[in-house]
Amino acid sequence: MTFALDPNLERDTWFICDLTLCSVRLHKNATWPWLILVPRRTDVFDLIDLSEADQGTLLREVNKVAHVLRKLTTPDKLNIASIGNITRQLHVHVIARCIGDAAWPAPVWGQPFNAEYGARQKEDLVKMIYDDLHH
Amino acid sequence: MTFALDPNLERDTWFICDLTLCSVRLHKNATWPWLILVPRRTDVFDLIDLSEADQGTLLREVNKVAHVLRKLTTPDKLNIASIGNITRQLHVHVIARCIGDAAWPAPVWGQPFNAEYGARQKEDLVKMIYDDLHH
Repeated sequence: MTFALDPNLERDTWFICDLTLCSVRLHKNATWPWLILVPRRTDVFDLIDLSEADQGTLLREVNKVAHVLRKLTTPDKLNIASIGNITRQLHVHVIARCIGDAAWPAPVWGQPFNAEYGARQKEDLVKMIYDDLHH
Repeated sequence: MTFALDPNLERDTWFICDLTLCSVRLHKNATWPWLILVPRRTDVFDLIDLSEADQGTLLREVNKVAHVLRKLTTPDKLNIASIGNITRQLHVHVIARCIGDAAWPAPVWGQPFNAEYGARQKEDLVKMIYDDLHH
């Protein structure tokens, strides 16, 4: 079966690039620097249902993406999570959190979506992340 | 430096057992079957600051614990997350979620803590998890 991105992820995020296993996407909610990794595997909902090899690849890609996000945003804390109660397709959140940010210290899931990137700001951020992931 | 459990984790969870890297603990909030893995490493706050070897061990232990939790509780979804905005010591949540549970589909963090295990129920659950982790 061909991999197809879940419509919720399609709606809420922008494509940045494909790594070996995962597509890396930027969440459109500009309140927090928020990346999402989506393993291009069909019919996998829970992290532990990925093969052992894929889990290893996912872990390496999470590290790569999280280091890039940390370099670009110097957060106080990284939040890394696979939840999927609403959007079942397996995806991993990598979110940069700062003390005093709009939801701090609560998690960001379920918080209002009221800040969007400007077109130029989004293009610049996607390009920076893309470039950092390819160097 | 000797590893010491964060006082929040000491207060909110019960010890089940030590695996190679992590202590496995049961969250006292009985609303959801909720396990927490705490790598016995000092001064590590973000997942990506664990060594590569430790991250591999953590991933294996998360799989082990999550499979045990799934077998015991047959959830609709597993929530697996490293957040740590309040309790900074690195810890990984493994939570069994069911459609229609007290917070569904919202995440459990920040939800009220209003259901405790009875003493016997807690002992039985800890023993079942312990036994399953050692077979």
